[in-house]
Amino acid sequence: MPPKRLSATEYAEGILAGNRTVLGRAITLAESTLPTDQALTQDVLQAVLPHSGRSLRVGITGVPGVGKSTFIEALGRYLVETLGKKLAVLAVDPSSQRGGGSILGDKTRMPWLAAHPAAFIRPSPASGSLGGVARATREALLLCEAAGHDVIFVETVGVGQSETTVHGMVDFFLLLLLAGAGDELQGLKRGIMEMADAVCITKADHGNEQAARRARVDYQNALHLFPPAPSGQPQPVLLTSAVSGTGLAEVWEAIEHYAAATRLSGYFQQRRQQQQLQWLHQSIVQELEMRFYADGAVRARLPAIKQAVAAGRLTPFAAATELLGLAGSVTKTP
Amino acid sequence: MPPKRLSATEYAEGILAGNRTVLGRAITLAESTLPTDQALTQDVLQAVLPHSGRSLRVGITGVPGVGKSTFIEALGRYLVETLGKKLAVLAVDPSSQRGGGSILGDKTRMPWLAAHPAAFIRPSPASGSLGGVARATREALLLCEAAGHDVIFVETVGVGQSETTVHGMVDFFLLLLLAGAGDELQGLKRGIMEMADAVCITKADHGNEQAARRARVDYQNALHLFPPAPSGQPQPVLLTSAVSGTGLAEVWEAIEHYAAATRLSGYFQQRRQQQQLQWLHQSIVQELEMRFYADGAVRARLPAIKQAVAAGRLTPFAAATELLGLAGSVTKTP
Repeated sequence: MPPKRLSATEYAEGILAGNRTVLGRAITLAESTLPTDQALTQDVLQAVLPHSGRSLRVGITGVPGVGKSTFIEALGRYLVETLGKKLAVLAVDPSSQRGGGSILGDKTRMPWLAAHPAAFIRPSPASGSLGGVARATREALLLCEAAGHDVIFVETVGVGQSETTVHGMVDFFLLLLLAGAGDELQGLKRGIMEMADAVCITKADHGNEQAARRARVDYQNALHLFPPAPSGQPQPVLLTSAVSGTGLAEVWEAIEHYAAATRLSGYFQQRRQQQQLQWLHQSIVQELEMRFYADGAVRARLPAIKQAVAAGRLTPFAAATELLGLAGSVTKTP
Repeated sequence: MPPKRLSATEYAEGILAGNRTVLGRAITLAESTLPTDQALTQDVLQAVLPHSGRSLRVGITGVPGVGKSTFIEALGRYLVETLGKKLAVLAVDPSSQRGGGSILGDKTRMPWLAAHPAAFIRPSPASGSLGGVARATREALLLCEAAGHDVIFVETVGVGQSETTVHGMVDFFLLLLLAGAGDELQGLKRGIMEMADAVCITKADHGNEQAARRARVDYQNALHLFPPAPSGQPQPVLLTSAVSGTGLAEVWEAIEHYAAATRLSGYFQQRRQQQQLQWLHQSIVQELEMRFYADGAVRARLPAIKQAVAAGRLTPFAAATELLGLAGSVTKTP
C-alpha cells in the first residue's frame, strides 16, 4: 500500500527538517507526469525555494568505463568523511534502462555513500524525454538543497545531449577522462571538452601513473590553444586514483577555488541567474513545441512534409508555414 | 525610382539564366520582412528548388584581424581564375552595423572578386534577428545555387551564435586562426574548435612561417586529443599566406577530399537532409517563440516574472506555466 499522500506543507516541513524519506517522496512527486502531482510539486518547491541555492552544484561527466561511479564514491566519501559535508548525488541519463529498482543498482555502484546518513543518492528518473528528466532533476536539486545538502553532484554520461543539460544546471562542470586517450574519446560528444571547467584523468594508478602524467601535460597544452572559459578561470587538468585516494583533495580544492574566484568576480551569481532565466525560456519553448507536435492536424501532415523537405521538393520555411497554418491553438488550454 | 516588381516566374527565369541583377533583387526580396515579399520569395524558391543543392557549401569563420576578407579574396580568386569555378560569397553577421551601402564595403574588402563576373558577393542583411538573417542567408544560398554557382562561401565572425547557424547550413566548416595563439582566442567562442572540419592558420608569411609551422603541430596534437568528428574525417590543420598564395591549393584540396570522402560514405547527403529537417524544426520553434513573446499579456507580465525568477522568488517552471496560461493563441493567425 503506498504511503498516505502528504500536503505541500507536510512535504516542505519534512524536507526542511532533513527527513530523507520525505525528500525521496518529494523527488518521486517531481518525477511524476500527472498534472495533480506537478501542481503539488510546484507548491512544495515554492515553499522551500527560499531555503535552496546554498549548495555547490557540480556536474560530473565521462563515458562508460572511465570509472565515474568509483570516482564519485571516492570523492564523495572524502567530502563526507574528511570534510564533514552533506552530499546529494543525482543523475541525468534519459536513455537509462534502469527501472524502478534502480536504487539498488546505485547502492551497488556507490556502497559507502549509499549506506551513509550524510549522503543522499538518487538515480535518474527511469523514463521520459530529456526535457522531462531535466526538469525533474533541476527540481530534485532544489529539494536536496532545501534539505541542507552542501554539495550536489549531478552525474551524466557524456555521450548525448544530456551533458549540455547538466552544464546548464551546475556551477562547475568536471570531465573525467582516461589516460591513453583514444578509444574512450570515440564515444565522447564533440564540444564537451570546451564545456569543462576542469578535466580529471582517472585511474592514475597500477603502473598507469606515467601515462596519466603524460596525458595531463598533453591536455594542458591542448587546452591552452582553445578559447578561454567565459568564467575567466583556467581549466586545470588533474590526476586521480579512486583506489588509492590520490588527487581527490586536489580536485575538491580546484572546485572550491573556482567557486571562490567566480563568487568574487560575480560570475558565479550572474551565471546562476542566467541559468534560471534559461530554464524559464526552455520550459516555455519545450511546452510550445510539445503541444505543437501533439496537435492532430500537425501529426497527420508531418510525415509527408518531412519527406518532401528531406527530398528537397519543399523548402523548410514553406513547410513550416504550412504546418503553422494547420495547428490548432497551442497556448489556450482546452 | 525602384525597378518594376517581377513575378515569381520572372525571378525564377532570370536566376536560372544566371542574371546577376535578378539574383540580387531576389535576395533583397528574401531579406524583406513584408508578408507579401515573403510569400513571393517562397514562390520563387519553390520554382528554383529543383535546380539548387548542386554547390559545395563552405562556412568560413574567424575573429576580426585573422584576415578573413583577404583569405576569401585569395582562395576565391584561386577557385575562379585557376579552377574556373563560379563562386558566391554570402555573410551572416546579425550584429553588423553595415548599412544599405554595405556592398561598397564588400567591394573594398574583396576588390578582385567584386569585379569578376564569375564571383557574386553579397553582404549580410544589415538588420534583423539572427533567426531572420539565418533564414534570408539560407534562401540566398539556394538562389545562388539555382543561378549556377559551384561553390558558396558563407562567411561569419566567430564570436557569437552565428557560427553555429552557419555550421548548420554548410557542408564544410573552416576555422581561420593566427599563429601565436593567444589574443585572437580571447574573442573566439568556446566549442567552435570542435565544430571545425579543418583549421587554417593564416598569415603564414613575412618571417611568420616558423611560428605558423609550430602552431600547426600544436593544433594537430591538440585535435588528436579531442573526440573525432561525426563525419569520420580527420580535421587537418593547414597553413596559408593570402599574400603569396601559399597553401590555397591545399585548402581547396582538403575541402574537395572531404566532400568526396563523405559523399562516398553517405554522410554528406545524410547531413544535408538533417540540415533541411533542422531548418524546418527551427523555423517552427522560432515562429512559435516569436509569437508567444509578442503576445500582449505575456509582454505585460514578463518583466516582473523574470525579476522574480532571477531573484529566486519563483521557480522557472511555475513562471513558465503562468505565462503559458496568459498567452492568447500563437498558432491560429488572427
